[in-house]
Amino acid sequence: MISKAKLKYIHSLEQKKYRRQEGVFVAEGPKVVGDLLAVMPARELFATREWMASQPHLAGNITEVTDDELRKLSFLQHPQQVLGVFETPDASATAGQSTLPQNATKVESQLALALDGVQDPGNLGTIIRIADWFGIDTIYCSPDTADAYNPKVVQATMGSIARVQILYINLAELIDSLPVGTPVYGTLLNGENIYRQPLQPRGLIVMGNEGKGISPDIARRVSHRLLIPNYPEGRATADSLNVAIATAITCAEFRRQQLSF
Amino acid sequence: MISKAKLKYIHSLEQKKYRRQEGVFVAEGPKVVGDLLAVMPARELFATREWMASQPHLAGNITEVTDDELRKLSFLQHPQQVLGVFETPDASATAGQSTLPQNATKVESQLALALDGVQDPGNLGTIIRIADWFGIDTIYCSPDTADAYNPKVVQATMGSIARVQILYINLAELIDSLPVGTPVYGTLLNGENIYRQPLQPRGLIVMGNEGKGISPDIARRVSHRLLIPNYPEGRATADSLNVAIATAITCAEFRRQQLSF
Repeated sequence: MISKAKLKYIHSLEQKKYRRQEGVFVAEGPKVVGDLLAVMPARELFATREWMASQPHLAGNITEVTDDELRKLSFLQHPQQVLGVFETPDASATAGQSTLPQNATKVESQLALALDGVQDPGNLGTIIRIADWFGIDTIYCSPDTADAYNPKVVQATMGSIARVQILYINLAELIDSLPVGTPVYGTLLNGENIYRQPLQPRGLIVMGNEGKGISPDIARRVSHRLLIPNYPEGRATADSLNVAIATAITCAEFRRQQLSF
Repeated sequence: MISKAKLKYIHSLEQKKYRRQEGVFVAEGPKVVGDLLAVMPARELFATREWMASQPHLAGNITEVTDDELRKLSFLQHPQQVLGVFETPDASATAGQSTLPQNATKVESQLALALDGVQDPGNLGTIIRIADWFGIDTIYCSPDTADAYNPKVVQATMGSIARVQILYINLAELIDSLPVGTPVYGTLLNGENIYRQPLQPRGLIVMGNEGKGISPDIARRVSHRLLIPNYPEGRATADSLNVAIATAITCAEFRRQQLSF
């Protein structure tokens, strides 16, 4: 039995304001909830008998719900067995602060993504899934990037949000704090053909806003300007690639070059 | 002034049944309509004074509408100056038939895409945009693939639908009709690392359904099985890549290999 107060609480978490205030987010379905439970406990779970039967060893704060109750709780058109409330791993995101994370120096030796104003929740979710696929475990987001804990983004990641750390941060300060010589890659219209550049397995890959690209303040901090060539090169074609598509092609090329070393 | 009958007609074109019956589709906004007008005349245009002023040489069946009238006609949340009704270039799609197109033999010397049951309109629109970027001018779609002339798909192509031919066809018959030795590529779980395969600049690249991948009937016709490796190879990660993302990485790799030849 779900109380009205509980229903209201869950629904409030569709809004960023309440997610940040509470430091939690909602995930749904056996796949996404299962991937999250593999790395962190849920603060609260609402599950059908069917799902609970599949998880005989699960302890904690679980409420059994009927299909009808789950439908009332869910943000999905087709609710799937379980809805979980999880704590936001990123404390700075919770507090809405933008302080430099201690692990920023990882960028000296590993690849990380930086998103400069990516607006569309679907694009952000897809990018998190791409990062996971290509073994990039940290994404730095400018404060005006969509909220990764928006239920639409969480579902679009297909569980990858459990394996990729998302940090909201001032990107200019992040870049300025990196050790000298750390490469900062960005796809820009005046970039060099990505296939003719040696790409290092470390540094930051900056991707920009859907319409405006990388902001001027960040673009001037990019040390390696890259371009995904169309085909045949220079032909009149689509004006641009979607940001998630460009992220995928860029990350794939970094990893291809590493696999061939 | 827009008649009620006209309004009803335009709204009916949100449904595939009426689009096929009439052999037309709707496109909106200066970018998409402009790209289409560059390659084909509109059967009918509805435009604000602002848009008409930007097209002083345009003749044909144009109705000036107010912003309010455009809002009533439009399928978009934020209508953009112009809405056009265009004739579906693919006669077979119009009639709902699945006959082998005469240009199927182009696949002997050029690359084409084949979509086997891609369901999501957003994915289909993105794939059309990717094909355009990489100079692939024909996409063969199985009859159960989403309709490319769905207004959501048309808008998601950002104008690329003007430059890419979309044909609905029985893919098994298409493949069986290809000249012997024409490569049929497909991304499959048991495929070979795409970066270690020489990829020819000709043949068919088959992409499958979002959940089920390539259907068994088509999979056994694939002559070159490809796999996009994750990183590090074999690591536990996202289960799969979104089909539009996989299409992008695959097409990019075909073109990269060609650019390096």
